[in-house]
Amino acid sequence: IHVIDWSPEMAEKAGYDHFMLKEIHEEPGAVRDTLMEMDDVRRIVSEIGEVKRVCFVACGTSYHASFVGKYLFESLLGIPTDVILASEFNYSVRTLTEDTLAVFISQSGETADTLNAIRAANSRARTLAIVNVLGSSATREAQHVLYTRAGPEIGVAATKTYVSQLTVIYMLVAAMGGLDDLVEKLEGVPDIMEEILRDEDGIREMARAYSEAEDFFFIGRGFSYPTALEGALKLKEITYIHGEGYAAGELKHGPLALIDDGVPVVAVAPPGPCHDKTLSNVEEVKARGARVIGVGSRDDASLRNEVDDFIGMDPGVDEVISPLVYIVPLQLLSYYVSVERGIDPDKPKNLAKCVTVV
Amino acid sequence: IHVIDWSPEMAEKAGYDHFMLKEIHEEPGAVRDTLMEMDDVRRIVSEIGEVKRVCFVACGTSYHASFVGKYLFESLLGIPTDVILASEFNYSVRTLTEDTLAVFISQSGETADTLNAIRAANSRARTLAIVNVLGSSATREAQHVLYTRAGPEIGVAATKTYVSQLTVIYMLVAAMGGLDDLVEKLEGVPDIMEEILRDEDGIREMARAYSEAEDFFFIGRGFSYPTALEGALKLKEITYIHGEGYAAGELKHGPLALIDDGVPVVAVAPPGPCHDKTLSNVEEVKARGARVIGVGSRDDASLRNEVDDFIGMDPGVDEVISPLVYIVPLQLLSYYVSVERGIDPDKPKNLAKCVTVV
Repeated sequence: IHVIDWSPEMAEKAGYDHFMLKEIHEEPGAVRDTLMEMDDVRRIVSEIGEVKRVCFVACGTSYHASFVGKYLFESLLGIPTDVILASEFNYSVRTLTEDTLAVFISQSGETADTLNAIRAANSRARTLAIVNVLGSSATREAQHVLYTRAGPEIGVAATKTYVSQLTVIYMLVAAMGGLDDLVEKLEGVPDIMEEILRDEDGIREMARAYSEAEDFFFIGRGFSYPTALEGALKLKEITYIHGEGYAAGELKHGPLALIDDGVPVVAVAPPGPCHDKTLSNVEEVKARGARVIGVGSRDDASLRNEVDDFIGMDPGVDEVISPLVYIVPLQLLSYYVSVERGIDPDKPKNLAKCVTVV
Repeated sequence: IHVIDWSPEMAEKAGYDHFMLKEIHEEPGAVRDTLMEMDDVRRIVSEIGEVKRVCFVACGTSYHASFVGKYLFESLLGIPTDVILASEFNYSVRTLTEDTLAVFISQSGETADTLNAIRAANSRARTLAIVNVLGSSATREAQHVLYTRAGPEIGVAATKTYVSQLTVIYMLVAAMGGLDDLVEKLEGVPDIMEEILRDEDGIREMARAYSEAEDFFFIGRGFSYPTALEGALKLKEITYIHGEGYAAGELKHGPLALIDDGVPVVAVAPPGPCHDKTLSNVEEVKARGARVIGVGSRDDASLRNEVDDFIGMDPGVDEVISPLVYIVPLQLLSYYVSVERGIDPDKPKNLAKCVTVV
């Protein structure tokens, strides 16, 4: 007779070693559930009416989701879009006008800086909160509310809430611009995510090879720049490795000085107009001795041949939709590096899930 | 008879060990010379006419100068202001309109990404180039031109050109808003800089104590956030230490995980509305074992008592003008750490003075 010890906490983890891994595996479902809200998004968009400027306000991971929003609003709709850290928002309050949509993103809906920012913006602009926790303070403060349908997130490092926030932002842009093709692309995302998750053993192996690193760089251009920033933040949060994300085009303006023999560089290079420039940045860091992990389309032979390790993604994922898909292997990489270093990724030191004091 | 060996290169360095140190010492003069252009700035501002949005486009150090511009335009004039990396500008081109002023900042006026950005913007918006090199390509491409009067800069790490770029941006904001008090504050800056430069031995001593560090964090809020970013970039460029700048309010959203026993943190905390919040961030990192260098007003006892090392600035320098003054000790700190580590700060590896290829 096998006796299996099964604690209540393990049950909650549904057999996964950590909440973070479970939550990464819940991403396809979180995106699917969030997509069910499309009618709600369309209703809110018509309530809000015409918008001449968008101003995202957020912290941490939500800031990176907002940054993808800037690329979407500006390149697809031509609407000037700013992304402001909630703790820095006071300096921008004077710029708000009634045709500005101020979008506040917070998983908990309780982040103190974000709540202060909503209160400061309410009398000057239209305000929309995108939150995960039903009935949280942000939902009472903002004029409009949209929910991410990620369910409760226990791990301190945001994973499924990040992709859910991104999903709501894509839906918002699609609804504002009447972009049905974007909605169609979104609907394909959960299946592609599942495919990545089935194939995670390769990333676990890779994590072992990089777990001793002290520094780590993440580079990307265009829609992959926010992905690079978020990949670096995950690594910082749960592995204590000094990861830093860069717009690949900025390398020559300083950070290249830090690239040395064996320094790991993660290059995020989906198919698209930036691909070749990113590839030439990969060649540059290789020439200085970097050890490069390339993340690109699985049929991208030019990238695969240039890098030390390669993570292949569905070739149908284009640059615009890539932030939702390409972040998944980076989350897994950080998770496995954390475990490899003997850290509990669910409870990194010095950090709390929700920052309710300023 | 004393025979003094005096090479032509030493003569050019005017007795300083490196061009970088000479150029830091030329900062008071560079600001004074640039201030002489006030009439030119007023003329350009009246030619440009009313502006509803400002969009800075730059790379590296010029990007940080632009970021100070955002704080000035938004908090003093209420004009929405964006700061875009030149290499990422394509994604924002659609947002430009004829009442947008696009400001391109480049020391050399030859940065390839910046030149491409000017060409893309010319047909959609009003364009202004702020450059240091007379007759450079940017001066021919942009509709309007303002010069920084820094003189030739030889060191790869931008120093006197940074404070000159800042000076032009302050002058632009003063001219647009009719802010004579801001011009008056600017006129006081060169003397305050000279005072810092007379007192550099303390910073040289400090550099010795921190030169073995592998990581370094720079934190600031409001107008000190760009200063933190630029301080970190200097350190990266010429010491190869992994310096990273942060908005102090973001610490809890990730980077705090990296703060450990003995990790140096530079806290930029001039007098002003953010001072107390930054001070509480200092307490936070101290509680995690960080070794903190505080930069603040020399009569700021609360900061001085909290930190391990203190760099005291003129108490009359308020938050708004502080970026011009508080960067000087950070430049000196990087310079002396570089020398201490046996690096030639004028010629850091992997970097060139001007990035003319994409």
